Amino acid sequence: MKASVIRIANFNAAHRLFRSDWSDEKNRDVFGLCSNPNFHGHNYKLEVNVTGDIDPETGFVLDLKLLKEMIDDEVMEPFDHRNLNRDTEEFQRLNPTAENIAAVIWQKLRQRLDARYGLKIRLHETERNVVEFDGR
Amino acid sequence: MKASVIRIANFNAAHRLFRSDWSDEKNRDVFGLCSNPNFHGHNYKLEVNVTGDIDPETGFVLDLKLLKEMIDDEVMEPFDHRNLNRDTEEFQRLNPTAENIAAVIWQKLRQRLDARYGLKIRLHETERNVVEFDGR
Amino acid sequence: MKASVIRIANFNAAHRLFRSDWSDEKNRDVFGLCSNPNFHGHNYKLEVNVTGDIDPETGFVLDLKLLKEMIDDEVMEPFDHRNLNRDTEEFQRLNPTAENIAAVIWQKLRQRLDARYGLKIRLHETERNVVEFDGR
Amino acid sequence: MKASVIRIANFNAAHRLFRSDWSDEKNRDVFGLCSNPNFHGHNYKLEVNVTGDIDPETGFVLDLKLLKEMIDDEVMEPFDHRNLNRDTEEFQRLNPTAENIAAVIWQKLRQRLDARYGLKIRLHETERNVVEFDGR
Amino acid sequence: MKASVIRIANFNAAHRLFRSDWSDEKNRDVFGLCSNPNFHGHNYKLEVNVTGDIDPETGFVLDLKLLKEMIDDEVMEPFDHRNLNRDTEEFQRLNPTAENIAAVIWQKLRQRLDARYGLKIRLHETERNVVEFDGR
Amino acid sequence: MKASVIRIANFNAAHRLFRSDWSDEKNRDVFGLCSNPNFHGHNYKLEVNVTGDIDPETGFVLDLKLLKEMIDDEVMEPFDHRNLNRDTEEFQRLNPTAENIAAVIWQKLRQRLDARYGLKIRLHETERNVVEFDGR
Repeated sequence: MKASVIRIANFNAAHRLFRSDWSDEKNRDVFGLCSNPNFHGHNYKLEVNVTGDIDPETGFVLDLKLLKEMIDDEVMEPFDHRNLNRDTEEFQRLNPTAENIAAVIWQKLRQRLDARYGLKIRLHETERNVVEFDGR
Repeated sequence: MKASVIRIANFNAAHRLFRSDWSDEKNRDVFGLCSNPNFHGHNYKLEVNVTGDIDPETGFVLDLKLLKEMIDDEVMEPFDHRNLNRDTEEFQRLNPTAENIAAVIWQKLRQRLDARYGLKIRLHETERNVVEFDGR
Repeated sequence: MKASVIRIANFNAAHRLFRSDWSDEKNRDVFGLCSNPNFHGHNYKLEVNVTGDIDPETGFVLDLKLLKEMIDDEVMEPFDHRNLNRDTEEFQRLNPTAENIAAVIWQKLRQRLDARYGLKIRLHETERNVVEFDGR
Repeated sequence: MKASVIRIANFNAAHRLFRSDWSDEKNRDVFGLCSNPNFHGHNYKLEVNVTGDIDPETGFVLDLKLLKEMIDDEVMEPFDHRNLNRDTEEFQRLNPTAENIAAVIWQKLRQRLDARYGLKIRLHETERNVVEFDGR
Repeated sequence: MKASVIRIANFNAAHRLFRSDWSDEKNRDVFGLCSNPNFHGHNYKLEVNVTGDIDPETGFVLDLKLLKEMIDDEVMEPFDHRNLNRDTEEFQRLNPTAENIAAVIWQKLRQRLDARYGLKIRLHETERNVVEFDGR
Repeated sequence: MKASVIRIANFNAAHRLFRSDWSDEKNRDVFGLCSNPNFHGHNYKLEVNVTGDIDPETGFVLDLKLLKEMIDDEVMEPFDHRNLNRDTEEFQRLNPTAENIAAVIWQKLRQRLDARYGLKIRLHETERNVVEFDGR
């Protein structure tokens, strides 16, 4: 019997939409205000959805304490209260759009999570802009 | 690498559940208070979910400015602060249930959106009543 | 020992900002889209805040069952799934702005509530527009 | 034309994560604070998602009044303001994890719902812990 | 220059509305389902509002780390994942209505907080029932 | 007859808690992660509460279009998608704590708003940290 468990976490980060191989003007043309050279920021709300069999012994798909630890290690510690462009390795050259942030988080958690589980990410950048990534 | 982007919009509209080929009594029997002849209304919350490849150049599935423009043209302009039964062409004869509103919005946005994208609609009529439509 | 209890209710209504002694043009000039002659509507979220002594016997300021009944009688029954301009007595000539709706609800509940209680109303018309009324 | 309708309900219940065939110590080791012998509790938020054809006559997938009645009978009446471990038959021996509660609710509603409909359950145990169950 | 800072915390607890000097019947008559002998429970959402001068050196009314520690000590540790009637000293004889819980939390935090600060408590028992207490 | 109207707006900004007359070490000691030299950021949610007489002619305390324009000019244009420390004049030397941001917004709007109105600001920095400022 399969179920999904979803753990929600929040992190607050600065970022800038930016390609270093483009001029400031082109960055501004394509990314608008989101390309402000001094950065802006968001309260990112992350939903990590893990699908698997319900363990008949515990009634858990996965102990949420373990899932919370993975999220703390892979997302909260490196991204919370950071500048995504400057303080992280992943976004040195990768543009930190919500799509790319979700994909990076998915890849980091995928490596930590046993292969028998399915994994989907939902990331809210603002109340009105949300992305989903599931590794397809 | 595929992702989904979701853009959220709100519109405030009056409507009445009603079939013009039924008597007022039958409308009342089937649709209850929702068939009040003088209309009632809702703050509709719309989630437009677009799935596609993440463009490696921009890191976007789709520029949300473009998606917002489509939603403004196809949904906000014709439906916001309107009476769905009286002020729109689509619901002259089609009963404006949440299911039908979602289907109509899907069809309007489907025509605007490049065929390579997937499209799903989620429409909240109240805090407790929600519908989903994806063109199946 | 004084406390406040807040009961929250939701009603869905159509309305139109409109003064019958003004021309349609003037109504449009002053009230914009909100004056659409065919009405629009909202999910109104109402917060009724009652202040009083905590009864040492029950630990209640007021039994919320009683407060819910008052709200059902005075607000839900006459306003939910109605057209405020057409289906209610109060807004035949009074413009149903959020301010006026809150004031009317306050007056109706004030008459039902024992004089020893304080009463405040908070009414959310949309996620971004809210009013407060406390009888001052 | 297929759509999904989602009805949301809330119930407030006490529970304890617990296996009667384990010692109190082992329950505590595995389930932590959630195994407190005197119980703790939650405001569970339930989303019932029903998929089916939009009836061309009514514009409904399903009359939400009927869905609300099923939820009232199968979930609200037996679970709301109850102790899941003590006051229900289902959790006498089944550990009331969110996963198991969602599966039990799915099974109860599945029996009531016509076979032509699809059924999915989403259950929020807290603001940060959510589960999904769809009978797979 | 005075401001208020509000820190929000959540705790999950079981309780029962109950007076030990009343019969079970009378408890049932007055408190209804809330008096279920096996308890029910809630996700309580707590807002702690502290008013004081903005410290010109730090720009803080109060370091929220300190406020969080007080809330952890006085509320989270004793109340979270507990049965308020059984596992706490305060509600051995005091009926754990939302009003009384708010008053108890206010008194506990008042003792920890320097006298120069104002203190108000807002406690959400459910999405629809909220109380406020400020020591008047 | 007095009422309050509340208009809600959201802006996304980067900031750093920081005093230029303190060493980096001291900033780090006092402000912790919030003092990250590369900045972090938030989705700030702003509630502007204006109190005044309900105009008997319009039923408005204040036309919310005008209030929205003031917020756009004084808050959205200078703060949204900005770095508060670097891109604004106000926070060149003033530490951009939530308290100080609320006070600055209050002062800017106070100058725009007719003296007959009362003004209060509520600013949500995260889901759990909120401040209020009313000019006292």
